[in-house]
Amino acid sequence: MIITLKKNAPKHDVDKLIDKFEGMNLHVTMIQGDNYNVFGLVGDTSVVDEKSVMANPIVYNVQRVAQPYKLANRMFHPEDTIVDVNGIQIGGKKIAMIAGPCSVEGEDQICRIAKEVKAAGADMLRGGAYKPRTSPYAFQGMGTAGIMAMVKAREETGLPIVSELMSAEHLDEFVENVDIIQIGARNMQNFDLLKAVGKTKKPILLKRGMSATIQEWIMAAEYIMSEGNPNVIFCERGIRTFETYTRNTLDLSVVPIIKERTHLPIIIDPSHAAGDYKLIESLSLAAIAAGADGLIIEVHDDPEDAWSDGAQSLKPKRYAELVEKGKAIAKVIGREL
Amino acid sequence: MIITLKKNAPKHDVDKLIDKFEGMNLHVTMIQGDNYNVFGLVGDTSVVDEKSVMANPIVYNVQRVAQPYKLANRMFHPEDTIVDVNGIQIGGKKIAMIAGPCSVEGEDQICRIAKEVKAAGADMLRGGAYKPRTSPYAFQGMGTAGIMAMVKAREETGLPIVSELMSAEHLDEFVENVDIIQIGARNMQNFDLLKAVGKTKKPILLKRGMSATIQEWIMAAEYIMSEGNPNVIFCERGIRTFETYTRNTLDLSVVPIIKERTHLPIIIDPSHAAGDYKLIESLSLAAIAAGADGLIIEVHDDPEDAWSDGAQSLKPKRYAELVEKGKAIAKVIGREL
Amino acid sequence: MIITLKKNAPKHDVDKLIDKFEGMNLHVTMIQGDNYNVFGLVGDTSVVDEKSVMANPIVYNVQRVAQPYKLANRMFHPEDTIVDVNGIQIGGKKIAMIAGPCSVEGEDQICRIAKEVKAAGADMLRGGAYKPRTSPYAFQGMGTAGIMAMVKAREETGLPIVSELMSAEHLDEFVENVDIIQIGARNMQNFDLLKAVGKTKKPILLKRGMSATIQEWIMAAEYIMSEGNPNVIFCERGIRTFETYTRNTLDLSVVPIIKERTHLPIIIDPSHAAGDYKLIESLSLAAIAAGADGLIIEVHDDPEDAWSDGAQSLKPKRYAELVEKGKAIAKVIGREL
Amino acid sequence: MIITLKKNAPKHDVDKLIDKFEGMNLHVTMIQGDNYNVFGLVGDTSVVDEKSVMANPIVYNVQRVAQPYKLANRMFHPEDTIVDVNGIQIGGKKIAMIAGPCSVEGEDQICRIAKEVKAAGADMLRGGAYKPRTSPYAFQGMGTAGIMAMVKAREETGLPIVSELMSAEHLDEFVENVDIIQIGARNMQNFDLLKAVGKTKKPILLKRGMSATIQEWIMAAEYIMSEGNPNVIFCERGIRTFETYTRNTLDLSVVPIIKERTHLPIIIDPSHAAGDYKLIESLSLAAIAAGADGLIIEVHDDPEDAWSDGAQSLKPKRYAELVEKGKAIAKVIGREL
Repeated sequence: MIITLKKNAPKHDVDKLIDKFEGMNLHVTMIQGDNYNVFGLVGDTSVVDEKSVMANPIVYNVQRVAQPYKLANRMFHPEDTIVDVNGIQIGGKKIAMIAGPCSVEGEDQICRIAKEVKAAGADMLRGGAYKPRTSPYAFQGMGTAGIMAMVKAREETGLPIVSELMSAEHLDEFVENVDIIQIGARNMQNFDLLKAVGKTKKPILLKRGMSATIQEWIMAAEYIMSEGNPNVIFCERGIRTFETYTRNTLDLSVVPIIKERTHLPIIIDPSHAAGDYKLIESLSLAAIAAGADGLIIEVHDDPEDAWSDGAQSLKPKRYAELVEKGKAIAKVIGREL
Repeated sequence: MIITLKKNAPKHDVDKLIDKFEGMNLHVTMIQGDNYNVFGLVGDTSVVDEKSVMANPIVYNVQRVAQPYKLANRMFHPEDTIVDVNGIQIGGKKIAMIAGPCSVEGEDQICRIAKEVKAAGADMLRGGAYKPRTSPYAFQGMGTAGIMAMVKAREETGLPIVSELMSAEHLDEFVENVDIIQIGARNMQNFDLLKAVGKTKKPILLKRGMSATIQEWIMAAEYIMSEGNPNVIFCERGIRTFETYTRNTLDLSVVPIIKERTHLPIIIDPSHAAGDYKLIESLSLAAIAAGADGLIIEVHDDPEDAWSDGAQSLKPKRYAELVEKGKAIAKVIGREL
Repeated sequence: MIITLKKNAPKHDVDKLIDKFEGMNLHVTMIQGDNYNVFGLVGDTSVVDEKSVMANPIVYNVQRVAQPYKLANRMFHPEDTIVDVNGIQIGGKKIAMIAGPCSVEGEDQICRIAKEVKAAGADMLRGGAYKPRTSPYAFQGMGTAGIMAMVKAREETGLPIVSELMSAEHLDEFVENVDIIQIGARNMQNFDLLKAVGKTKKPILLKRGMSATIQEWIMAAEYIMSEGNPNVIFCERGIRTFETYTRNTLDLSVVPIIKERTHLPIIIDPSHAAGDYKLIESLSLAAIAAGADGLIIEVHDDPEDAWSDGAQSLKPKRYAELVEKGKAIAKVIGREL
Repeated sequence: MIITLKKNAPKHDVDKLIDKFEGMNLHVTMIQGDNYNVFGLVGDTSVVDEKSVMANPIVYNVQRVAQPYKLANRMFHPEDTIVDVNGIQIGGKKIAMIAGPCSVEGEDQICRIAKEVKAAGADMLRGGAYKPRTSPYAFQGMGTAGIMAMVKAREETGLPIVSELMSAEHLDEFVENVDIIQIGARNMQNFDLLKAVGKTKKPILLKRGMSATIQEWIMAAEYIMSEGNPNVIFCERGIRTFETYTRNTLDLSVVPIIKERTHLPIIIDPSHAAGDYKLIESLSLAAIAAGADGLIIEVHDDPEDAWSDGAQSLKPKRYAELVEKGKAIAKVIGREL
């Protein structure tokens, strides 16, 4: 940790601060500058609260050198983590393709679409049973009936299923029935929910919060991991920016960054980022080329009558075309799909 | 609702869309343009999902005219809502002053600071017992012991108490002990939590999400109100922007906007917005001048040793000076403090 | 143009507004809603200033239906524009590869790097002679000597040259010597400069402003085109967001959007977006897969001693590897490189 | 400057880097950490390019301690700068009130409005003669005729005049006729224009760029000052954020920050930030309470027929009311208006 002091800080106050740090078993090195003096603290600086240090009137700036995450940090875990989902691996050579409707609308609908996306090349099925909707007056999801309809679709197709958990109240239902538990963007810093899923061993798909920095996102993974669950899969779904043409701005630079900083897999959700089916193919192929470990894409066979997010859903035929092109791109970069 | 169709949309498809809307009991008016045709839909358009309409390939654009909120909407409730908190009113002539430490650190600490902020002019006491921290390794709050320490501080000073609820699991504890339940920025779209506090009658301090639009924020209030709880107080605490000098960017334009669009009170939290005690006085006086109904400010008597957020905490003496200036400004705009 | 009036707008004022629009030769259709009334204006609405309409107290909202750009609009020019740069085409089947150092540092340096990037597969040479630097104390570019060094590099390699023009004062020098004139992000709305380059026939590389919406960017192209120069090439170089890990956030969704909305080519600059050489390959391959018409990449043979932007420069060898992979991806999507 | 090296950087490369810095007459202190090693550089680090250092593969991070600005830096110039504009002072006890229409529309209009704003309490007159418009098809300003109409208004009222310069081409006209030269948000990093106005002694009103950080804004002032012109007045006019309800988000925290970091005056433009006349009074009073040195507000006597920006213009009567309230708030914080 590097602490910059203000010019002309009284010697008495500087000494007091040094004593305080040494009392925390930290080693202090001082660099005398022309207008500022700088402390370097060596040791376990995780015990130091940066904001309390900043509260000291002689302090000008505080900067952490070490990353605040440990379990997710590639520095301490150099090899890639591969998350196993009922035999399908995320983070290995093969790129995982997850597809399905935004909302489960009934058993027929989800079973029908499951077969279609499987035929088109999907490895897993997505579908929302509990829906985070901006309006309390909008369809809030089928709940348990939706989860059970997905279970039926899994029985009929063999595809593992992914669904979003919005409240710890339904955790048991998800642990029992679902193969990947999704934590949505709006709950990325719902720390109680993170701790709850951290106590399971289920694979967790952790979506990036709409305005979460990469570091905050990794810290959310760290919350899950610190409770004992190492099976975290990052999912970028666009960040909120000033641009309103797209629903969100897909940030593909996170693919190489997450891989450099952590050992965990990362997949891309182009559907929520773009909010427009016409952009999905471009962004999906880009994600594969960038090195993503998977894609989660909304597919519906009747988008105009979908109960939610129709505008961003691909029809199965277009999805199948995308998968074909994706395969060719995966091969170029030494992967499979 | 205004729907713009693409040029040269096939007549057959246009007619089919008109039929669909008329089947929803909506009246359709058509405006023929040179390059686009426009539908106006009149009636209860809350039954129409914009994104499904957008999924129709002949549709170019969809725009809602009416606001999607009803209970919070000033159009249907012209007079101001005043929220009563144990006899202290928020939203009336008097500006409510809430102060206290970021975290409760013990009974002595919170009782001592409670007395100091009361002496300085505060009307209510804030203090965090359950803390949303970016890191799982940071102090997570005293929990129940912290809530009980605040109850003790209320007994000793008479100040109503405000604290943040992070999970519905602790709702009973909060309903029983706390005077205002705070929903933090990170949980503004934790819809299950919003529904849970909506089932109580407690005043709810609803912080704006870090990247929430004004409309999303009002919709979060609508979630609470639609469950039966009309006692919502908005709290602006800064939004996330590209600027990193301040922790967040305080958006004071929300004060007149929330008052124009809704009938609910709005207070300002300059401490979390600025993240720096040196900026608090300026921003607090600005908030009063802008017409805010209250201020919630972090005050600590030993910021350098605070367990969290020391850098943004005022000492009681500086808080007292701020209250004095605030009184004079309140008078200028016809209010009290 | 769609104008929403407030509820209970006085009939007299509504009639006055209708008269005003009819006086502008616009046809007015009215849709009566429950809480709002809506006008549709048909005709040449480019004569109507939205903000003046909004100034009318009976008006609630104004929305343009037609895009404000004409010359750049694909609606009126369906076929792709291909810009010819000394025989090299941008916007056709072949993806254009532009490479070179951030700053020209001397004739030897630029000639040497020109040969290296040519050998690695580049089609054109970039190099800054006039540099927009945040600090007045930083190296400001070699100026005319830098341009002449680039001319020399062109003579030696045959590569067309691209350089940034910062002021109309140097326009003649650029028209005479440079093959593509670059307008930098900071000058995207320097309207006098746009008009000046619009009076030439030179190809213009128009970088997106750091916080420019897609529409503002297209309008900047419209400024150039409206002066008579149709040779505009868009260049995305990252937008400013809350994320600070990367210098800017590369927005690849603009590739399909620009191609849908306009008929002009679009290329990608991953170097300025990422600010970190380690991210360039991922983002470059993603850009090709997304459908970009070209890439402009910073390459330097001694990044640690570069006079500017060393951290984001690739060494020639890594650039050559990138080109090889890019070729394979281009083939997958039916293009060449 | 603090440089963090990667763990296990080869000793040979570390020594080479130390030699390089010592060759620049910098003193190097090293702090050995567990996972990182840190260099502190002492001396004139303005000669070091951060991005070149970052290009070295053994370097993990680089941080400047000293601010990169000198002339604007309060550290080296502790007393407030007061800019004199024809006898009216900006930055002293009195808060400067600048008002007038967005665009000059003719001599009658500007003279009439000048008298109205003077009667209402304004100290100076604003008016645009050269207009930066998003669309090439919108009114671009009256040009020289507009400037001469403002000169006439000054003759009739005695109010100094403020107008925006968009190109160095018109600099002589502005130096001769205008009292304050405004540099607009879109040109804040048009470095050639900054250098040009830096060569005059005219007061410069430097608007903050739409997505400029505070540091970039101060560096733009430094550009002007480094050419010899110390008369820079900062003007905050809102920044671009995700929120679209307002045109931009007014960032009032810059008032105390600019005053802490620099010695220059800062004024606020609530009109362009809000884009809506209904928000102007709240934001103006807030700006005064926050400590701003002045306000620049758009006033028009017929906003519905204004040639630009009608929606955000106050009528003179409302402006006069605002001035009255502003006077009372100024008094509270020990200032005048």
